[in-house]
Amino acid sequence: MDVVFLGTGAMKPTPRRFPSSLMLRHKGEIIMFDAGEGIQVRVSQSGFSPMKVNKIFITHFHGDHFYGLPGMIFTMSQAERTEELVIYGPEESESFVHRILSLGYGRITFPIHVEELKPGSVVQGDGYSVTAFETDHGPPGLGYVFREDDSFNVDVEKMKKFGFKPDPKFKLLKQGKTVELGGHLLKPEEWLIPAPGDSLAYTGDTRYSKAVVRAVRGVTVLVHEATHLSEDSKDFREHSSAKEAARAAKEAEVGYLFLTHISPRYKDATPLLEEAREVFPRTYLPKDLDRVSIKKGEVRFLK
Amino acid sequence: MDVVFLGTGAMKPTPRRFPSSLMLRHKGEIIMFDAGEGIQVRVSQSGFSPMKVNKIFITHFHGDHFYGLPGMIFTMSQAERTEELVIYGPEESESFVHRILSLGYGRITFPIHVEELKPGSVVQGDGYSVTAFETDHGPPGLGYVFREDDSFNVDVEKMKKFGFKPDPKFKLLKQGKTVELGGHLLKPEEWLIPAPGDSLAYTGDTRYSKAVVRAVRGVTVLVHEATHLSEDSKDFREHSSAKEAARAAKEAEVGYLFLTHISPRYKDATPLLEEAREVFPRTYLPKDLDRVSIKKGEVRFLK
Repeated sequence: MDVVFLGTGAMKPTPRRFPSSLMLRHKGEIIMFDAGEGIQVRVSQSGFSPMKVNKIFITHFHGDHFYGLPGMIFTMSQAERTEELVIYGPEESESFVHRILSLGYGRITFPIHVEELKPGSVVQGDGYSVTAFETDHGPPGLGYVFREDDSFNVDVEKMKKFGFKPDPKFKLLKQGKTVELGGHLLKPEEWLIPAPGDSLAYTGDTRYSKAVVRAVRGVTVLVHEATHLSEDSKDFREHSSAKEAARAAKEAEVGYLFLTHISPRYKDATPLLEEAREVFPRTYLPKDLDRVSIKKGEVRFLK
Repeated sequence: MDVVFLGTGAMKPTPRRFPSSLMLRHKGEIIMFDAGEGIQVRVSQSGFSPMKVNKIFITHFHGDHFYGLPGMIFTMSQAERTEELVIYGPEESESFVHRILSLGYGRITFPIHVEELKPGSVVQGDGYSVTAFETDHGPPGLGYVFREDDSFNVDVEKMKKFGFKPDPKFKLLKQGKTVELGGHLLKPEEWLIPAPGDSLAYTGDTRYSKAVVRAVRGVTVLVHEATHLSEDSKDFREHSSAKEAARAAKEAEVGYLFLTHISPRYKDATPLLEEAREVFPRTYLPKDLDRVSIKKGEVRFLK
C-alpha cells in the first residue's frame, strides 16, 4: 500500500501544514482518514482525484478533522459524481454528516451512506479490513487499523530443491488449488508459505492510552498524533506529546512510527522528532504531501 | 482604506487561488467579505489577526463563499476570543450560521450576532456605511458597497491667500467649529471644502445585471466576479464573464475594476484580463494576497 500524508498539522490550516488527513491507496482503491479544512488543496497537489475516494473514515468531529468534508462533497458534485461515498465514523456521525449536507445551497449529485462504528467494529474491504479502536481524547472518537489480508506465496526455494521451475500453474496453487506438474500432484498446503499483510494504524487525536497500545500492537506503521513537546504538556491536555507517541510505539512493538497532528506552535518540529527518537528510534516526522510505500514490513519514502 | 484580496478563485481552494474572500481595513477596523474554505491560511499570510475581524459580510451561501467560517470561528475560540462577531448576510443567514455553529464538538467562546439584510439595507459603521444590493445569481444573494463618510478639509490654498498659516486650530475647524485666528473668526462653512469618501463595491457571484450597475454607480473600486472567458459562457450560466464585468464597470462609470472569482479552469487568467481591458482599460486582475490602498479616488498596489 501507498500512503500520502495530506495534512500533518493541528487546529487550523497553515501554509506549512494543513490539518489532519491521510490518504491510503491499496490495489487501486483510495481511502481517506479524516479531512481537515482546505484538504482539497492537498488532494489536488497529491495528484489523486477526489472522485476516486469511495470511503472516508472520520476519527472524531473536531473541526480540524472534518471541516474539509463539505468542500470535498461540493467539488465532487460540481464534477457530477454519481458513485456512492461511504463515510465511517464514531457515534453521532449520521447527525454530523446530515448537518454538513444541509450547510449551504449546493446540490449533491451522489448518494452518501454513513456508518457509525464502535470500538472493535470491522469494515471488510477487497483484500483488507479496517478495525476501529477506542481513543482517549474528549468527544466520541475512534482510531483505525487498516490491515491487508494475509496471503500465501509459492515456496520457490522448496520448488527449486525439488527441481520444479516457475510455472503459470503456480497462480492456481496460490489460489489454493491442487495442480499437476511434471506428473506430480502438488497440494497447496505443502507448497505455500504465508505472507502476512502489512498494516497501518491511524490514531486521530488521543492522549497516551493503554487501549490504543493494545489496538495497534505489531502494526507495520503507526501514525500517532504528536501535538506537542513533552515540556508543553500542560497546554495540551487532550493530546499526546511526541514522547508519549513514541512510548506507545515502543510498547506496541510496531515497525515504524510516523508523527502527525503537529501544533502550529512549532515552526520547526525537529525537537518533536528528536524527543520521540530517544524512545523509539524508527520514528519519522512527515510533512504535508510526503508519500510512503509500505511493503513486506518495510517503509520507503517515494519521490 | 486598504484592501487585501485573500481569495480570488472560485468553486474550491487551489494552491494558486483560494475561494472568495476580501479583507478591508478602515481606520483600524477590519471587515471581511465572504470567507471561502481554507481562508485562514490566507488571513495568517496577510499578517492580519483573525481576532481583529468584527464584521463579516457573506454574499450568499454557496460553499466557496462561506466554508471558511466554521474554521475561523473555531480558531477564534481556540484563542479564547470574547468579543462579539457580527455576521451579515442575505435571508436565511440566521439558519445557515446556526448550522455552522452546530457543525462539530468545538466550543465557541464569544457571542455571534447574525443580521439578515435586504437589498438597500444600510449598516452604519464608524466613519463608513455598507449598503447591500441585489445580485442575479441563483440562491438569495447580496452584493455590498462599502462607502467612507464624506469629510471636509481646510481649504489650505484660500488660507494661504488670506495670509493664514497652518495652525492646530484647523482641527477644530474641520470638526465644524468656529475658531479664532489672529483676531479673525473663521467659520467652517467658509473655510472648508468637501472631501468625498472613497468606496468599494463587492459583488459576490452575479450574472451581468442592470441592478448591480445601478447599485455600484461611481464607486472608486468595483470588485466584480469574472468567473470565465466570454467564449466559455455556455459552461457558466450563473456567472459573469470578464467582458461582462468590464461592461458593468464601464456603464457604472467606476474608477477601477478588479476581477475576482476566477474559475480554476484558467491556469493562466491573463486572457480574462485582456478581454476586460478591451472594454474597460482601468481593470486589474489581483492574485491572492495582493494588497491595494484606495485613497482620494486612486488605487495603489502595496508591497
